[in-house]
Amino acid sequence: MSISRTHGRSPGQMRPVDIRLGVQKDPYGSVQISYGDTVVLCAASVTEGVPPWMQSSENPHGWITSEYAMLPGSSSQRISRQAKGRSKEIQRLIGRSLRAAFDLSALGPRTITVDCDVLQADGGTRTASITGGFLAVQLAVQKLQDKGIIGTSPVRSPICAVSCALIDGEVLLDPDYSEDSRADVDTNLVLTKDRIVEIQATAENQPFERRILDSMLELAFGVTPYLFQCMYSAVSS
Amino acid sequence: MSISRTHGRSPGQMRPVDIRLGVQKDPYGSVQISYGDTVVLCAASVTEGVPPWMQSSENPHGWITSEYAMLPGSSSQRISRQAKGRSKEIQRLIGRSLRAAFDLSALGPRTITVDCDVLQADGGTRTASITGGFLAVQLAVQKLQDKGIIGTSPVRSPICAVSCALIDGEVLLDPDYSEDSRADVDTNLVLTKDRIVEIQATAENQPFERRILDSMLELAFGVTPYLFQCMYSAVSS
Amino acid sequence: MSISRTHGRSPGQMRPVDIRLGVQKDPYGSVQISYGDTVVLCAASVTEGVPPWMQSSENPHGWITSEYAMLPGSSSQRISRQAKGRSKEIQRLIGRSLRAAFDLSALGPRTITVDCDVLQADGGTRTASITGGFLAVQLAVQKLQDKGIIGTSPVRSPICAVSCALIDGEVLLDPDYSEDSRADVDTNLVLTKDRIVEIQATAENQPFERRILDSMLELAFGVTPYLFQCMYSAVSS
Amino acid sequence: MSISRTHGRSPGQMRPVDIRLGVQKDPYGSVQISYGDTVVLCAASVTEGVPPWMQSSENPHGWITSEYAMLPGSSSQRISRQAKGRSKEIQRLIGRSLRAAFDLSALGPRTITVDCDVLQADGGTRTASITGGFLAVQLAVQKLQDKGIIGTSPVRSPICAVSCALIDGEVLLDPDYSEDSRADVDTNLVLTKDRIVEIQATAENQPFERRILDSMLELAFGVTPYLFQCMYSAVSS
Amino acid sequence: MSISRTHGRSPGQMRPVDIRLGVQKDPYGSVQISYGDTVVLCAASVTEGVPPWMQSSENPHGWITSEYAMLPGSSSQRISRQAKGRSKEIQRLIGRSLRAAFDLSALGPRTITVDCDVLQADGGTRTASITGGFLAVQLAVQKLQDKGIIGTSPVRSPICAVSCALIDGEVLLDPDYSEDSRADVDTNLVLTKDRIVEIQATAENQPFERRILDSMLELAFGVTPYLFQCMYSAVSS
Amino acid sequence: MSISRTHGRSPGQMRPVDIRLGVQKDPYGSVQISYGDTVVLCAASVTEGVPPWMQSSENPHGWITSEYAMLPGSSSQRISRQAKGRSKEIQRLIGRSLRAAFDLSALGPRTITVDCDVLQADGGTRTASITGGFLAVQLAVQKLQDKGIIGTSPVRSPICAVSCALIDGEVLLDPDYSEDSRADVDTNLVLTKDRIVEIQATAENQPFERRILDSMLELAFGVTPYLFQCMYSAVSS
Repeated sequence: MSISRTHGRSPGQMRPVDIRLGVQKDPYGSVQISYGDTVVLCAASVTEGVPPWMQSSENPHGWITSEYAMLPGSSSQRISRQAKGRSKEIQRLIGRSLRAAFDLSALGPRTITVDCDVLQADGGTRTASITGGFLAVQLAVQKLQDKGIIGTSPVRSPICAVSCALIDGEVLLDPDYSEDSRADVDTNLVLTKDRIVEIQATAENQPFERRILDSMLELAFGVTPYLFQCMYSAVSS
Repeated sequence: MSISRTHGRSPGQMRPVDIRLGVQKDPYGSVQISYGDTVVLCAASVTEGVPPWMQSSENPHGWITSEYAMLPGSSSQRISRQAKGRSKEIQRLIGRSLRAAFDLSALGPRTITVDCDVLQADGGTRTASITGGFLAVQLAVQKLQDKGIIGTSPVRSPICAVSCALIDGEVLLDPDYSEDSRADVDTNLVLTKDRIVEIQATAENQPFERRILDSMLELAFGVTPYLFQCMYSAVSS
Repeated sequence: MSISRTHGRSPGQMRPVDIRLGVQKDPYGSVQISYGDTVVLCAASVTEGVPPWMQSSENPHGWITSEYAMLPGSSSQRISRQAKGRSKEIQRLIGRSLRAAFDLSALGPRTITVDCDVLQADGGTRTASITGGFLAVQLAVQKLQDKGIIGTSPVRSPICAVSCALIDGEVLLDPDYSEDSRADVDTNLVLTKDRIVEIQATAENQPFERRILDSMLELAFGVTPYLFQCMYSAVSS
Repeated sequence: MSISRTHGRSPGQMRPVDIRLGVQKDPYGSVQISYGDTVVLCAASVTEGVPPWMQSSENPHGWITSEYAMLPGSSSQRISRQAKGRSKEIQRLIGRSLRAAFDLSALGPRTITVDCDVLQADGGTRTASITGGFLAVQLAVQKLQDKGIIGTSPVRSPICAVSCALIDGEVLLDPDYSEDSRADVDTNLVLTKDRIVEIQATAENQPFERRILDSMLELAFGVTPYLFQCMYSAVSS
Repeated sequence: MSISRTHGRSPGQMRPVDIRLGVQKDPYGSVQISYGDTVVLCAASVTEGVPPWMQSSENPHGWITSEYAMLPGSSSQRISRQAKGRSKEIQRLIGRSLRAAFDLSALGPRTITVDCDVLQADGGTRTASITGGFLAVQLAVQKLQDKGIIGTSPVRSPICAVSCALIDGEVLLDPDYSEDSRADVDTNLVLTKDRIVEIQATAENQPFERRILDSMLELAFGVTPYLFQCMYSAVSS
Repeated sequence: MSISRTHGRSPGQMRPVDIRLGVQKDPYGSVQISYGDTVVLCAASVTEGVPPWMQSSENPHGWITSEYAMLPGSSSQRISRQAKGRSKEIQRLIGRSLRAAFDLSALGPRTITVDCDVLQADGGTRTASITGGFLAVQLAVQKLQDKGIIGTSPVRSPICAVSCALIDGEVLLDPDYSEDSRADVDTNLVLTKDRIVEIQATAENQPFERRILDSMLELAFGVTPYLFQCMYSAVSS
């Protein structure tokens, strides 16, 4: 027998996904993405050149990096602006995931910085940031192609991300904050349509059995068609 | 003969003002305000208690403070997240202006923090922050009254803010970024309907005559009825 | 046909594990652990009291936290002492894993800080830190029991950690630095004898198939008996 | 009927101004200035080159910047050395005002840094810093001319600064600390002999009428001949 | 045959010492001291209470600490305000020396902070700071006695400080900057009339023989009567 | 009549000295040195180039610098990782002493960084660091010679270091922590076989007589043959 979820969701059902392009006029790629009440503003900026530690390489590759922050008013408790360890860890995850989705050599010697600013937090801010961040970079590289700055598209494989939780013995997809805060296992999955980019599964309380991980992978791969459809609709309209 | 302004504005005409309430669900007061293409998200959070340096006073007064930041994607050049001297100076101006608008003793021993995050910058971010910030605090104290936490309203006198520029010998109200960047004098005015809360007039290039200051005060006091009407409409709908 | 590994290891074979207790005389628990040429010094210190954000809880729970650093001379390139994002992320992983292994309520209102200082780095420093860190905390709580400061043992389930890599299509256990630096997938697994505490799998280059993750779990669970035996021998001698 | 001021000053009367040149032997320009018991040591240092963000401009302009600090023993409560937001704001005001007084293109590609260190604080430290800072830069550019490093004098228009306060309904010039601390309006004016460089008027408590600003301008412009005379005497002796 | 020194000084002769009391009106003890062209402003401030790490002691002792900084304009090269390792080391020396000169138990549970700000640097800034700092604390404790806040005088033994240098094989007392910058050995001595409080002797280039240290002690003890006389004259007038 | 010391040491007797080379495989020079229970790991790393402030000199000299830190578990009270003033002062002493022992011009345009990490602290950590640090640099320059990177040996004069304490009127060599913590005078001596590199003598409580300093020099010079013998044995085996 199943747990009752807010809004009558089934265990494997995502919250409504809403994607708006061009909310900010200045960045090369601007995406506002919602997973239910979680809202993240993603801005992809392009600068010529790469970080100093990359400059010696012979073939000029590009670089993609990310910064993640919660606006102070995004949560019921005001969030301090000082970046905490948690934020650094999340932005490293976002950057790593985006770099796996694009061909950095096709990007040429330039850096794309993806700023993910959480306007409203209700669980799943890092997974919404990755999905929205991918779209923001896609818009940015499209603009670089349109301007003739780069040739072939650097998109290697579209990615999206979603989280899962184990609550009272049941695996739930895309938990909101009220669910997430009482989860026994918290897992973030970054996926292509059939492969894994990154998986982080953490026992918040008790160690968990391997079959829990299997169930989470089932649910997550099950929802990727819906996520890719939302992304496709947004960029096609 | 008059300068030609973008969108055919007259010298004393503001850009369109747009105000949306409740954009963020968590803060006590949430206001998104636009002066043309400048967009600022203002969030008023309430915490019990006041800063340590106020605690010794006998009559428990409240405190209002502000933080101001530009989102990295708010400008055509990506803005670094490290707070600069300019940001500190602006948030001190916002906090000072808001404290002049409210009766801190009626607020009781609690602190309202107003976060002004610039989503898009096109000139006048600090004045939009003050006008929007006043509304955010007004919503927050209304909620405190509704909950019976405070009695009489701490609103002392509604305030709004607007900037003026001297460009090629002509005084212009509410300059956008393209105008602001070639101004000879840059003035920010925080006003009630008939009084001055704060005025900062700066010669960017050449010192200016006193009659310029007088013209700016004329234009600014001339537009306050329109600004108060926009504010009143927003909170009444 | 299999890849050839340094020291003629088979794909599922760990490097020699060496564990020494009491290397430092002062900490409550002192463990020096080696996975091959990787050497980590783990020190568990006990302080009365818990962090401020825990103090309001009614039942006084304890807390376990960790700090991780590489000594400047631990690597062929001198490592700067300034903590980087990578170090913060690793110490958060270590702390989280250790907290899952112990019953914090049985620990009482005190904090155990586990310092993991890498004397020599040759791949797998974070997994060696977790295995060694568990033993250091176990020694510390044993001492607390011996002194009568706490009653029942807070040990809930012993944990150990090991990493896996995908290299040229083959899954290898416990890669050293030369292997790790050319891995396509890098996975860290924190395990009890039959359950998962944390799993982090990252595509360094190309997204990977789900069966790779399955193979890694096989190898990792296959080596835990050996690791627990090394740990048991160390504390029994 | 007028308020009684310390030392029997009339409302529009400044405290005694004392200016000493060459107090420090090393800086290009060294000025110690007193407004009554307020004492500021101003040192103008010259370095070749300009800040990185100016270097791309075609015509090599110079730059003038300022740092402001209070010595720990300058006040009845020991002042901490950590620069606070207030200090940053003041030094930005000083730098801006000085740049308006000099022709930066005549200065050539070099930077003048004006350090204003408050030896004793009794109200008006920022206005004394501006007046003294102007003289320090004037001495420095004179020395550059004497050495033949620059040709025509970069002095555009001499400036001085003074503050005004509204206390118990009366406008007072150059308030000392005891007056300043109970002011309802606090205004700083930076002036040439007939023009405005910067004006900052702040309601400390209640918004104020426009005629208060007018009175303050009257008093301030009324005292500038005296200030310029003090400055002229100092550099002529 | 002897080296020729600026101003015709003999090897064991100090530069003229000038001491002015009360230069700053606010601190409990204010002393401006010159060793030739080196000028240091010393301010002793008193605050009730002691640092947290002292508070558990049963007998409430006082504490004396120091901060040392060079004003940016004190040297021919502008000095940056950021405290460097050298400044920290010097202020630790000053604090340690002053604590040896006073009976901290007679001071009661209060802290004296001695700020030594170098107005002009020409060698010997740390030794002038110690001599001037001692006087500033002496004035402060005298004021505490006059107010009846403390009973018996905490002065244990007056101290003074002077430096020596080995230049071209000859030992010179109180070197100025031009001498100091070419010294082979640099020694700072903090002395009572017949004992040593601290001695720091450093080979700048070549290790030195023990007899050099003996000569420096001779010269330093030889000049203490003159230094104590200057100090006595200053407080007696 | 003599004080009784731990382990029955005579006043002028050092604790057992133990020196191990190559404990870390990566640094150019790796030395672990013990003075009794004090254990310091010294690593000398070599980087091409010198700090920016040295680069303008015509003859390319090398540079030797040091960093000193205590591992958190090195003491009975956990040591925080944040570098404190004390650490900075110690590492400046180590760097200065090592630079006096080597001919920097023979080193060529490269920097040797000596990291001294205290594994266990029981008094004398800075003196053990200097002795061990000298050996680490010696090993590093030997390797540079073996590789043909530098020609003649930069070793100028071998140095070692030891501390002395005055306790209950008696001078003791190489005090351990229990002795050091009740010393009236604390002296660190860096010596060659017959000369002084640096001497720092500090009265912890009462100023001391000059003959105490003489006794300390006797004891310290008396033990240098033993220390140099330990060093020689270590590098010869």
